[in-house]
Amino acid sequence: MGKIICAGLGPGDPDLISVRADRVIRAARHVAYFRKAGRQGQARRIVEGMLAGGAAEYPMEYPVTTEIPFDSPEYNARLAAFYDDWAARLAALAATDDVVVLCEGDPFFYGSFMHLYVRLKDRVPVEVIPGIPGMAGCWNVTGQPITWGDDVLSVVMGTLPEADLVRHMQGADALVVMKTGRNLPKIRRALAAAGRADQAWLIERGTMPGQRVARLAEVGDADCPYFALVLVHGQGRRPLAAGAGQ
Amino acid sequence: MGKIICAGLGPGDPDLISVRADRVIRAARHVAYFRKAGRQGQARRIVEGMLAGGAAEYPMEYPVTTEIPFDSPEYNARLAAFYDDWAARLAALAATDDVVVLCEGDPFFYGSFMHLYVRLKDRVPVEVIPGIPGMAGCWNVTGQPITWGDDVLSVVMGTLPEADLVRHMQGADALVVMKTGRNLPKIRRALAAAGRADQAWLIERGTMPGQRVARLAEVGDADCPYFALVLVHGQGRRPLAAGAGQ
Repeated sequence: MGKIICAGLGPGDPDLISVRADRVIRAARHVAYFRKAGRQGQARRIVEGMLAGGAAEYPMEYPVTTEIPFDSPEYNARLAAFYDDWAARLAALAATDDVVVLCEGDPFFYGSFMHLYVRLKDRVPVEVIPGIPGMAGCWNVTGQPITWGDDVLSVVMGTLPEADLVRHMQGADALVVMKTGRNLPKIRRALAAAGRADQAWLIERGTMPGQRVARLAEVGDADCPYFALVLVHGQGRRPLAAGAGQ
Repeated sequence: MGKIICAGLGPGDPDLISVRADRVIRAARHVAYFRKAGRQGQARRIVEGMLAGGAAEYPMEYPVTTEIPFDSPEYNARLAAFYDDWAARLAALAATDDVVVLCEGDPFFYGSFMHLYVRLKDRVPVEVIPGIPGMAGCWNVTGQPITWGDDVLSVVMGTLPEADLVRHMQGADALVVMKTGRNLPKIRRALAAAGRADQAWLIERGTMPGQRVARLAEVGDADCPYFALVLVHGQGRRPLAAGAGQ
């Protein structure tokens, strides 16, 4: 009897994978990962050069991306069938061998793996190895702490209605905005309404080749992939040295 | 010329340290870490058995903890002097050799290292290696995703005024409350006022020996260390399988 092991990959630099996940990935005989049809996929790219010779790969290709509205019953039904199907296939493999599922960032933090997890956890043993969330890799490469002292951090999706974005941006000290892309004009307006636009950064491919770290004000609306993050750093309480500039 | 390398240690299990931080820690000739006077310290405990023979250790012992109110000028002045002093000592060491500073969790996420960082970054080369934040280790051991779909996650400190806690607890889908301890009665009242008390978990020493994972309702007010976390999981949008129970 095998098990399913979901390995969190962290923000993208393979050197930032945990010691445990690194070991599990290198020893894996069966490796599954999500990707868009026709692409290599980010998760697979991160582990390039790490897989053992002869490891069997199972690319799980999303049946839909943006062709159907994500809130339609059709979208929901097709994705549910996709997850049902892969859960059954992975469970069958795990009957005799361990199966490693690769997951960018931290699997339990907005990860796609959780849709398999809820379908698998009562059928086969499932182990989830946490990873450094992508956002932590992104704030790391800005070279500034994201939170200090009693700062409140809120993580919001750029897909939310503009009024909700404004409310969260006003309420928090530090901000992470995910799912940017074509939501960027709305995110920008919301930041301006909340008085935070000047403090915002845009980070693309943080910790990976081709990384970009820029002030949001310097980035055009059309020049933002869906997986770029917008960050606003907190400025909370901190002990100041007399005369020491910070 | 050496440099300062701050190694994020992750949530506590040494197997969850990143490959890069693990390598840096094992090779270090000078290792500094914060601790309370008279204690081994959590950071040092995590790397037990990993340090090279002959590595020089520099325990940085906080000059005050709870003897002086944290918002008094005296507290601020003593802590600032402490950070100034250690920044100078580490910078002097880094003139000739690399110095590794251990930091639990992720250094740029509420980490004490940032007080050294702002004092050092314009004087010597400083590299910060991200880590899995403690909260990610804690939600991992609950065996449930913390966020789904378009959930909003807010991270708040239990030291905040009760009305602020209620407001953030009402506004977010998923919650992390840090700095619990004697703030627990206030946190509990705020969760109740926000209608979230039944969904809350308390996690102590997540991923470490002696780990405790409990429903908050089952934990007494007096039975909560300062570093335990309170979590409320989000329940966001997800594709449901027809007939598949979740």
